[in-house]
Amino acid sequence: MSTQPSKQLETFDNATPDRDYTIHIETSEFTCLCPKTGQPDFATIKLDYVPDEKCVELKAFKLYMWSYRDQGAFHEKVTNTILDDLVAVCQPRFMRITGIFNVRGGVYTTVVAEYRKEGWVAPEPVTLP
Amino acid sequence: MSTQPSKQLETFDNATPDRDYTIHIETSEFTCLCPKTGQPDFATIKLDYVPDEKCVELKAFKLYMWSYRDQGAFHEKVTNTILDDLVAVCQPRFMRITGIFNVRGGVYTTVVAEYRKEGWVAPEPVTLP
Amino acid sequence: MSTQPSKQLETFDNATPDRDYTIHIETSEFTCLCPKTGQPDFATIKLDYVPDEKCVELKAFKLYMWSYRDQGAFHEKVTNTILDDLVAVCQPRFMRITGIFNVRGGVYTTVVAEYRKEGWVAPEPVTLP
Amino acid sequence: MSTQPSKQLETFDNATPDRDYTIHIETSEFTCLCPKTGQPDFATIKLDYVPDEKCVELKAFKLYMWSYRDQGAFHEKVTNTILDDLVAVCQPRFMRITGIFNVRGGVYTTVVAEYRKEGWVAPEPVTLP
Amino acid sequence: MSTQPSKQLETFDNATPDRDYTIHIETSEFTCLCPKTGQPDFATIKLDYVPDEKCVELKAFKLYMWSYRDQGAFHEKVTNTILDDLVAVCQPRFMRITGIFNVRGGVYTTVVAEYRKEGWVAPEPVTLP
Amino acid sequence: MSTQPSKQLETFDNATPDRDYTIHIETSEFTCLCPKTGQPDFATIKLDYVPDEKCVELKAFKLYMWSYRDQGAFHEKVTNTILDDLVAVCQPRFMRITGIFNVRGGVYTTVVAEYRKEGWVAPEPVTLP
Amino acid sequence: MSTQPSKQLETFDNATPDRDYTIHIETSEFTCLCPKTGQPDFATIKLDYVPDEKCVELKAFKLYMWSYRDQGAFHEKVTNTILDDLVAVCQPRFMRITGIFNVRGGVYTTVVAEYRKEGWVAPEPVTLP
Amino acid sequence: MSTQPSKQLETFDNATPDRDYTIHIETSEFTCLCPKTGQPDFATIKLDYVPDEKCVELKAFKLYMWSYRDQGAFHEKVTNTILDDLVAVCQPRFMRITGIFNVRGGVYTTVVAEYRKEGWVAPEPVTLP
Amino acid sequence: MSTQPSKQLETFDNATPDRDYTIHIETSEFTCLCPKTGQPDFATIKLDYVPDEKCVELKAFKLYMWSYRDQGAFHEKVTNTILDDLVAVCQPRFMRITGIFNVRGGVYTTVVAEYRKEGWVAPEPVTLP
Amino acid sequence: MSTQPSKQLETFDNATPDRDYTIHIETSEFTCLCPKTGQPDFATIKLDYVPDEKCVELKAFKLYMWSYRDQGAFHEKVTNTILDDLVAVCQPRFMRITGIFNVRGGVYTTVVAEYRKEGWVAPEPVTLP
Ligand SMILES: [Ca+2]
Ligand SMILES: [Ca+2]
Ligand SMILES: [Ca+2]
Ligand SMILES: [Ca+2]
Ligand SMILES: [Ca+2]
Ligand SMILES: [Ca+2]
Ligand SMILES: [Ca+2]
Ligand SMILES: [Ca+2]
Ligand SMILES: [Ca+2]
Ligand SMILES: [Ca+2]
Ligand SMILES: [Ca+2]
Ligand SMILES: [Ca+2]
Ligand SMILES: [Ca+2]
Ligand SMILES: [Ca+2]
Ligand SMILES: [Ca+2]
Ligand SMILES: [Ca+2]
Repeated sequence: MSTQPSKQLETFDNATPDRDYTIHIETSEFTCLCPKTGQPDFATIKLDYVPDEKCVELKAFKLYMWSYRDQGAFHEKVTNTILDDLVAVCQPRFMRITGIFNVRGGVYTTVVAEYRKEGWVAPEPVTLP
Repeated sequence: MSTQPSKQLETFDNATPDRDYTIHIETSEFTCLCPKTGQPDFATIKLDYVPDEKCVELKAFKLYMWSYRDQGAFHEKVTNTILDDLVAVCQPRFMRITGIFNVRGGVYTTVVAEYRKEGWVAPEPVTLP
Repeated sequence: MSTQPSKQLETFDNATPDRDYTIHIETSEFTCLCPKTGQPDFATIKLDYVPDEKCVELKAFKLYMWSYRDQGAFHEKVTNTILDDLVAVCQPRFMRITGIFNVRGGVYTTVVAEYRKEGWVAPEPVTLP
Repeated sequence: MSTQPSKQLETFDNATPDRDYTIHIETSEFTCLCPKTGQPDFATIKLDYVPDEKCVELKAFKLYMWSYRDQGAFHEKVTNTILDDLVAVCQPRFMRITGIFNVRGGVYTTVVAEYRKEGWVAPEPVTLP
Repeated sequence: MSTQPSKQLETFDNATPDRDYTIHIETSEFTCLCPKTGQPDFATIKLDYVPDEKCVELKAFKLYMWSYRDQGAFHEKVTNTILDDLVAVCQPRFMRITGIFNVRGGVYTTVVAEYRKEGWVAPEPVTLP
Repeated sequence: MSTQPSKQLETFDNATPDRDYTIHIETSEFTCLCPKTGQPDFATIKLDYVPDEKCVELKAFKLYMWSYRDQGAFHEKVTNTILDDLVAVCQPRFMRITGIFNVRGGVYTTVVAEYRKEGWVAPEPVTLP
Repeated sequence: MSTQPSKQLETFDNATPDRDYTIHIETSEFTCLCPKTGQPDFATIKLDYVPDEKCVELKAFKLYMWSYRDQGAFHEKVTNTILDDLVAVCQPRFMRITGIFNVRGGVYTTVVAEYRKEGWVAPEPVTLP
Repeated sequence: MSTQPSKQLETFDNATPDRDYTIHIETSEFTCLCPKTGQPDFATIKLDYVPDEKCVELKAFKLYMWSYRDQGAFHEKVTNTILDDLVAVCQPRFMRITGIFNVRGGVYTTVVAEYRKEGWVAPEPVTLP
Repeated sequence: MSTQPSKQLETFDNATPDRDYTIHIETSEFTCLCPKTGQPDFATIKLDYVPDEKCVELKAFKLYMWSYRDQGAFHEKVTNTILDDLVAVCQPRFMRITGIFNVRGGVYTTVVAEYRKEGWVAPEPVTLP
Repeated sequence: MSTQPSKQLETFDNATPDRDYTIHIETSEFTCLCPKTGQPDFATIKLDYVPDEKCVELKAFKLYMWSYRDQGAFHEKVTNTILDDLVAVCQPRFMRITGIFNVRGGVYTTVVAEYRKEGWVAPEPVTLP
């Protein structure tokens, strides 16, 4: 695998497809450009998902994050696009992207978007005391 | 867009209207005047919403916050008014305003108000373990 | 309004009675006397409520807290009494009192009591991701 | 009341039996002996309950905790026994004991056990925004 | 019991099998090898379970964690394997394994997997105010 | 010893007078009255000292704190008075009083005053890496 | 005393002039205008001083802070000006002003300025272990 | 070595006696009895020292802490005694004992005592920026 | 001033040159490229200085940080270079740069470098109790 | 450079040898074996140094840490050995190693050792207010 920024997200086979389980991936090293001013924006990106047949490869995830470094991107739109791209390659049962953007003008912004595979029902959560 | 305080909230088109997703915006730079004493009050204002056709423009949000700087405002009332004003311009599926006011007389006050569009049903939350 | 300790709680008209919204008020300046030893007890008192026609006036809330300064009071009983007194004057849709008492003999005690107006149904909570 | 360690838990009458409310009691001063090695173990013990006719007396609770000082006790078993003893004397509507034991061999252990009175139904929780 | 790393998990009889209760065990001393690079990986492993007839012996749990020290293991797979191994020996009513892996390449990963015994229904959680 | 508020501070003999060592005592249960408004003020009081022949008795320290409950007191003055009173009874080698007062009008105040016995030289501090 | 914003700082007599002691005053309710953009700036202002003959009156301190609400002010300059103004009215032995300004453009700024009365020597600090 | 509580502190040879270096040891598992009431007291004990020829053996340190479990002990005295006992067996170049006792009657107490070997001079501390 | 990345640092006249005072500037939005792998590195950069005739202009500071976005830079070298560049343009009395770099391979790195103008002596610090 | 555990520490030339500056390196991924029980020990290792002609290469530092994975090591001795090894290869002006070891038997241990090159004098620290 190259160490170039890349929109090509890679996956590997889920070794435990018979079980709904959760993978959480998080990086505070996301940066893109503001489409209005051209100046750098910074964010923490969180990914939570329940894999189906495929899992997101970690290094490819990192190179994908890198691919936004020279790209203009609005907060609301880029969060939804990252979700769409990740859903497209790994076809999960459930996926959530959270984008926590750095303060601008005294204002903090967080955007959260989710995908649920048609027909998939989340397991009833067990709340232990 | 001017950099004057302004009650004119601006919006932009939601690029992902087919999906219920969440936008969280927060500023600790809200200040108004106490209607009883005329002295400054300070608060943190949080906005959480699920957009429909329109999103709240961030700079306009900031100028709107600024518009309260010389205005008398009760904690309970102003929180509800901010909600009404934001609902009026962006017609969201859901919106919540949280006003966290600075301590006065040893007493801390927080006010939270919500709007739900008629007919809109919140997506069943997925609680991942 | 006097600045004497007072059991007289005052209210003002709720300006937004058509909406269920939440008001949170909190003070760490509650002190009373232990009925067994006569020594001072200290607590943080939290009030959460959904107003109906009337809201609790903040300064009167403070003077009411003050009224316990020379009064003996058991943790469990005083938390319920504060709830009863506040319900009596403002007839809320919902109210919760939390009393967090200072450690005594290495033991921490917290008491929480709630009131719900007959016929009032809490709005279905919207849990945003 | 003596100031000797004692398994005799004392209670007092609940002054507000018509209302389901919560009492939380917590101490970080629990110590017993490890049945395998004879060495001291330490824990924080939390008690949450909804009283029925009787409340747990705080000083007696402390003396009861003290009674384990020279007694061998397994983490899982002692947490359940404390629950049984407290249920026996105060017959609550609901009770939960949480035992948070000090790290041993790099491993942290917490045990949580609950009792619900037959026929008692927990009030529907009100989640305020 | 030896003090060698061991895949042999030991159990002891649950002294309170008539009650659904929770045992939480946690260690930050898990280390294995990355199957790709051969370099050490580090994680915190959390175990939450509701025992049936058997409880997990703490020292054996520690030796089992130790058994991964020289073994290659992917984050997603090893979390599921630990769950399978623990379920196999203690046949719990419910079990959850959480693996919180150290940052690699600026990316943090957490994996969570659960097992529920067929026919077991989690007790309705009591949410106290 | 009575359990009445009392300006009578009691002491006991320092069992280790040949060594300069430090005693730190702290309570967050100090309350007095504001001389301007008559309303309650609250503070945390910290005492640090190097004893000479006498140590401050803890229960008497608590009753002395209690003695301010119905007394008017300015922040700056009362901190210095507490220092003077404690110095008078225990004649320490060094003493420091820190008064951390609750926020009033959005303003936090802390006052710190020290006493050094004539001729006493503080030991050269050993700063370990 | 009026409750208008005011550059008139008031003082009261130091009741303990024979002792070097420290008064710390802090507010997070400072706001002024940016001289370049005209937009509001926000800061926390901390004052530490050793009084000589006069102490800073707290309410006047608050009204003085308020006086910057409609005034343009650079971070570096305004911190030094606040120091000059406070030194002018209370002629302290030592004074320090710390201005902690809100993030702007992703950059946080803090400015600290000090005054020492000619001839005043700080007491040798006692560092207790 | 036995696993009985023991006043016999054991040591081992310092392998690096040519260098002044620091060893910090800390336990939150100290408990003794209050000499006035006979009730348990709890504390965290911290030990900092610069060894000379001998180091404190960790397991013996733990058994020594255990030896106070059934012993009456005043806060100030026991901290100095622990220092004396440790100095006697390991003859360090420098040693400090910090005893942080649990709150009693709303009052927190910490005691710190130090020993310096005659003729030993602490290395000039290097404060890196 | 442009909003392009720029090595041109701008300054403005220090309005209070007669006083040694401190300016602290901090951003967590520094990113450069690793000279070995070409991959992005991230850091928080802190600047502390005592200005002489000139102060660092904040927006220019931000654009200067931006100028490293496409540049290869070793942690140790770049921290010293930033110091040299800032010293060159504003000729301060004292300046310190702290570079806190993101974890790589499980290892965290921080680099701190200082400049002192020849002949400048730091004011004796006043340590208030 | 290999990715095998290695006692061979590598260095690179210090690009700024004319300036005393500080490099801080830290990893929480140190593990060795207890010489008494053979069981794994875990620690966080911190390195602070002022380089002279050579800097410690980060990847070699990591491989050196790895080299302890199968080696028995006492806390006090291994901290001093790491210092000796690093001093030997990079001959710094100053170096400090801090080893923070995981709790064992309820006891936490930290060891700190320093090296100063003969004739090197630490720069007078500048303490900014
Ligand atoms: Ca940030
Ligand atoms: Ca629960
Ligand atoms: Ca505030
Ligand atoms: Ca308290
Ligand atoms: Ca959610
Ligand atoms: Ca503990
Ligand atoms: Ca809510
Ligand atoms: Ca880690
Ligand atoms: Ca307070
Ligand atoms: Ca702020
Ligand atoms: Ca010290
Ligand atoms: Ca404690
Ligand atoms: Ca420094
Ligand atoms: Ca980071
Ligand atoms: Ca650890
Ligand atoms: Ca300073």
